[in-house]
Amino acid sequence: MHLFRKPKPAGLLRRPSRAEAPLLAHAGRLEAAPFGRSEAGGPEVSSFSLDNGLDVVVVPDHRAPVVTHMIWYRNGSADDPLGQSGIAHFLEHLMFKGTETHPVGAFSKAVSGLGGQENAFTSYDYTAYFQRVARDHLKTMMEFEADRMTGLVLDDAVVAPERDVVLEERRMRVETDPSAQLSEAMAASLFVHHPYGIPIIGWMHEIEELNRHHALDYYKRFYTPENAILVVAGDVTPDEVRRLADGTYGRVTPQGARPKRIRAREPEPKALRRLSVADPKVEQPTLQRLYLTPSCITARDGECHALELLAEVLGGGATSYLYRKLVLETGIAVNAGAWYMGSAIDDTRFSVYAVPAEGVSLETLEAAVDKVLRRAPAEALEPEAIERAKTRLVAETVYSSDSQSSLARIYGSALAIGETIEEVRRWPVDIEGVTKERLAAVAERYLVPARSVTGYLVKSRDPDAPVSVAAA
Amino acid sequence: MHLFRKPKPAGLLRRPSRAEAPLLAHAGRLEAAPFGRSEAGGPEVSSFSLDNGLDVVVVPDHRAPVVTHMIWYRNGSADDPLGQSGIAHFLEHLMFKGTETHPVGAFSKAVSGLGGQENAFTSYDYTAYFQRVARDHLKTMMEFEADRMTGLVLDDAVVAPERDVVLEERRMRVETDPSAQLSEAMAASLFVHHPYGIPIIGWMHEIEELNRHHALDYYKRFYTPENAILVVAGDVTPDEVRRLADGTYGRVTPQGARPKRIRAREPEPKALRRLSVADPKVEQPTLQRLYLTPSCITARDGECHALELLAEVLGGGATSYLYRKLVLETGIAVNAGAWYMGSAIDDTRFSVYAVPAEGVSLETLEAAVDKVLRRAPAEALEPEAIERAKTRLVAETVYSSDSQSSLARIYGSALAIGETIEEVRRWPVDIEGVTKERLAAVAERYLVPARSVTGYLVKSRDPDAPVSVAAA
Repeated sequence: MHLFRKPKPAGLLRRPSRAEAPLLAHAGRLEAAPFGRSEAGGPEVSSFSLDNGLDVVVVPDHRAPVVTHMIWYRNGSADDPLGQSGIAHFLEHLMFKGTETHPVGAFSKAVSGLGGQENAFTSYDYTAYFQRVARDHLKTMMEFEADRMTGLVLDDAVVAPERDVVLEERRMRVETDPSAQLSEAMAASLFVHHPYGIPIIGWMHEIEELNRHHALDYYKRFYTPENAILVVAGDVTPDEVRRLADGTYGRVTPQGARPKRIRAREPEPKALRRLSVADPKVEQPTLQRLYLTPSCITARDGECHALELLAEVLGGGATSYLYRKLVLETGIAVNAGAWYMGSAIDDTRFSVYAVPAEGVSLETLEAAVDKVLRRAPAEALEPEAIERAKTRLVAETVYSSDSQSSLARIYGSALAIGETIEEVRRWPVDIEGVTKERLAAVAERYLVPARSVTGYLVKSRDPDAPVSVAAA
Repeated sequence: MHLFRKPKPAGLLRRPSRAEAPLLAHAGRLEAAPFGRSEAGGPEVSSFSLDNGLDVVVVPDHRAPVVTHMIWYRNGSADDPLGQSGIAHFLEHLMFKGTETHPVGAFSKAVSGLGGQENAFTSYDYTAYFQRVARDHLKTMMEFEADRMTGLVLDDAVVAPERDVVLEERRMRVETDPSAQLSEAMAASLFVHHPYGIPIIGWMHEIEELNRHHALDYYKRFYTPENAILVVAGDVTPDEVRRLADGTYGRVTPQGARPKRIRAREPEPKALRRLSVADPKVEQPTLQRLYLTPSCITARDGECHALELLAEVLGGGATSYLYRKLVLETGIAVNAGAWYMGSAIDDTRFSVYAVPAEGVSLETLEAAVDKVLRRAPAEALEPEAIERAKTRLVAETVYSSDSQSSLARIYGSALAIGETIEEVRRWPVDIEGVTKERLAAVAERYLVPARSVTGYLVKSRDPDAPVSVAAA
């Protein structure tokens, strides 16, 4: 419940598959195109808006009499007010604390009583809640969800213990996990000014200070019909959804305008950055690299698709260039890969990572990675490798579209960051259209030292006198 | 005019002396104790407040019939609103653009017409304006300065060209100077969350967006009697200053409360960070190191004085430990030293730097620096070396107290960050009281890898294919 998935980029050693990381913040784009190569291959997605500004997307899926009901809010951790990092995620927890109409637990009890499932998650750019139930119960879900859009009741008796839950969550996920500390430090180093450098869960000392007033102020600001997107996937028609939504969400009073997202823009990077986290608990040293790149929203025309394909060619699985060179051919690494978090409102991260084979130092591994990357434009971008990567990328999205909730997530996350349904539908065609020249151009433009942060996760031998670790 | 001194820590190769960097943000503490070893050695400093909340400090100096008139505002670049970095400094420029009563240039013309001098500067924690004139003209200065506390008139005709001036200032000082880029990147890397990571002058893309409304909003918020400190040093009595201040500043309407400074606190650092700026323009490679440490405001009891003395012992001039070991004994460096920016409201920076001798790589130099630092607690902290450092530190402040404007700056900057006159007066005694054990304790606690950022400034050989610079 209240599933919070920290974005694992820097700690991530394989590409996230749906199975292992269905809600990863950066997994969205991997699933962002549910259809085959042809535009006509997908279901007939409809969209409309209610009178109060709430956007609605309907994704028909008549294979079984179930529906996935999701509500997305266009606010995530990157919209946390200064000094209140973690408030988006904290409020996500608090949204389960009951309303004027329904006491604590009533909603969750109703879902499970109806044999359904529910979940919620917070990412950098959005927060979402969903339930999967038999189609007959869609209206009930809407009633509950519309009710907690404005009816949330918070008192200190529920806020303080829930804050302890979040603090404990952070302790378990970050404070005691060196690889999570590396992830946080790398994001903080890559984004010196933009809030993507702040962890989704928040900084410990700021979570500690969050209170009921912060939560309610935030709630009133962002939980409005204009700021929400309703996605219903499943055995329903658009007309049914419209009728049910009008009778539930439609009654929520609009605020007059969508709340503003206030975010600082990242300055142009000038310095190559490196960092290391040394801890006795580290069992497996790893090498991580992040590059600051455009996202699918900030990219110049087409660069986002080129970056997605570049990540796939370079580091998408066991047939990728990095894996072949570093694991299969030289045996210097036991794993290697790349990923790109294109699904983001602002400039984002492209990552390369590798795990050294036993006895190989991170310095040696890094030199090898850089050598491989330098040769990549000439060697990796062969027509056949590019074709293979396109096929893999597009096929993955076809598989993911088999899942009703994946489909709902694809549309919800895309719309929440400002993409259109048409862009989602066109994605396979856009990927197909990426040329070798485009791939080489984005590699040359963005995978450069001044845009990079390199991270080492190392086992510390002597934590008390580690000044010399500086040279590591 | 409108002298803006960027804080040069990371580009700084010697300790700032008054002569070369009188207004350096971090030089304040070096000058923060104008008196000899005895508490009774200084002038009888008075302080009082006007009815509207303006704090006043009077520092008598009757050696010549001149006065230094300074007004300090308790807001600096670290108080710039999100996305408006540079506004404190930009407003400092705009403060010379005239008021309802005095057209553009009238104030400056009056100062020079009276044979005086004027200046202004912006730092992280404060902004200040000062004039030095014959004592008879003090009242005129007060009239002008009180007038522009609320009477500033800004129209687009003066704002836009002045923004171009600031942009050009940034271009000259930073964009074309690799060492300034290193400084900025190091601060941004050390302070991942706190605004000390943002340059005083602002990020280029945010300066470009600053406009008249930002400037006026900022002005109205911070330029109030409650937020200001008047410091008058020179040939005056407290009674005279009170009478003149009452008749000028005393007429400014109070706002009811001092404006709030809203700042994020830095999380506990976990990762050792490194970065490099590579540029063909670099003639002299340098090694810089920053450690996140408490400031004189955030320090636990006494740690600030220990850190100040530690910087002096380790790196204060040609008799310091680092200089002896790296320059005189081994010849591996042509310069080496350390400094500490204790004068800051929030957690601050302690720096170690070195410039390699010809043919010595930065890697080699860094390994030598770390070796020297590791040995420092045992070797450097000899009673004699500590005594020498105390004498140097205190003597320096005695020299600086010979300058009337230094005296005014010492009190103004101390009060602007929340120190008391008593703390300033007690400073030499506190420095004298630092023990060897305290020095060793702060070195051990704060000069550790996880609190550090190490920077390399290197000449790039091939700026087009520098992926391998990553290993530098």
